[in-house]
Amino acid sequence: HCRTNYSAALRMKWSLTYGKGRCSCIDKGSDFIQQKQKALGKIEVIPKSSSCDHVEIIATLKPTGEQKCLNPNSKWVRKMVTALVKKR
Amino acid sequence: HCRTNYSAALRMKWSLTYGKGRCSCIDKGSDFIQQKQKALGKIEVIPKSSSCDHVEIIATLKPTGEQKCLNPNSKWVRKMVTALVKKR
Repeated sequence: HCRTNYSAALRMKWSLTYGKGRCSCIDKGSDFIQQKQKALGKIEVIPKSSSCDHVEIIATLKPTGEQKCLNPNSKWVRKMVTALVKKR
Repeated sequence: HCRTNYSAALRMKWSLTYGKGRCSCIDKGSDFIQQKQKALGKIEVIPKSSSCDHVEIIATLKPTGEQKCLNPNSKWVRKMVTALVKKR
């Protein structure tokens, strides 16, 4: 019981310190996603703003619509987004 | 009266031929946006799929939440998205 409280508190603290508390993602996000590009519904890039002090990248996966935060510092993530935009 | 019908029909025809009819954008989109980056709420990149045969890029603008289709073939648009992702 104590462990779940601790990790929840950590997530809470992490999200408050991580980006002024109004970011969409509560942690830095995944460095990559296993799913194939076909399973990618869309990628949202949210610029840093007054409510969140860093860029956020959120993938929406098909067919479930599951949303997954991706780490904007990850080379893999940046390459994937750039490649998507170039693949017209 | 005839003009509006004609342009609506054109848009309809354009959207049907432009990308199998189930794309989010009804035309190729703007080559750039005037608004400053601060006015950018988010950018959505939608990979090509069975329902739309080309990448789509949609900007959501602040504070209105207006959505604007951007041309994925535009160098300015591609540079802007890539720069956003790199600006951590």
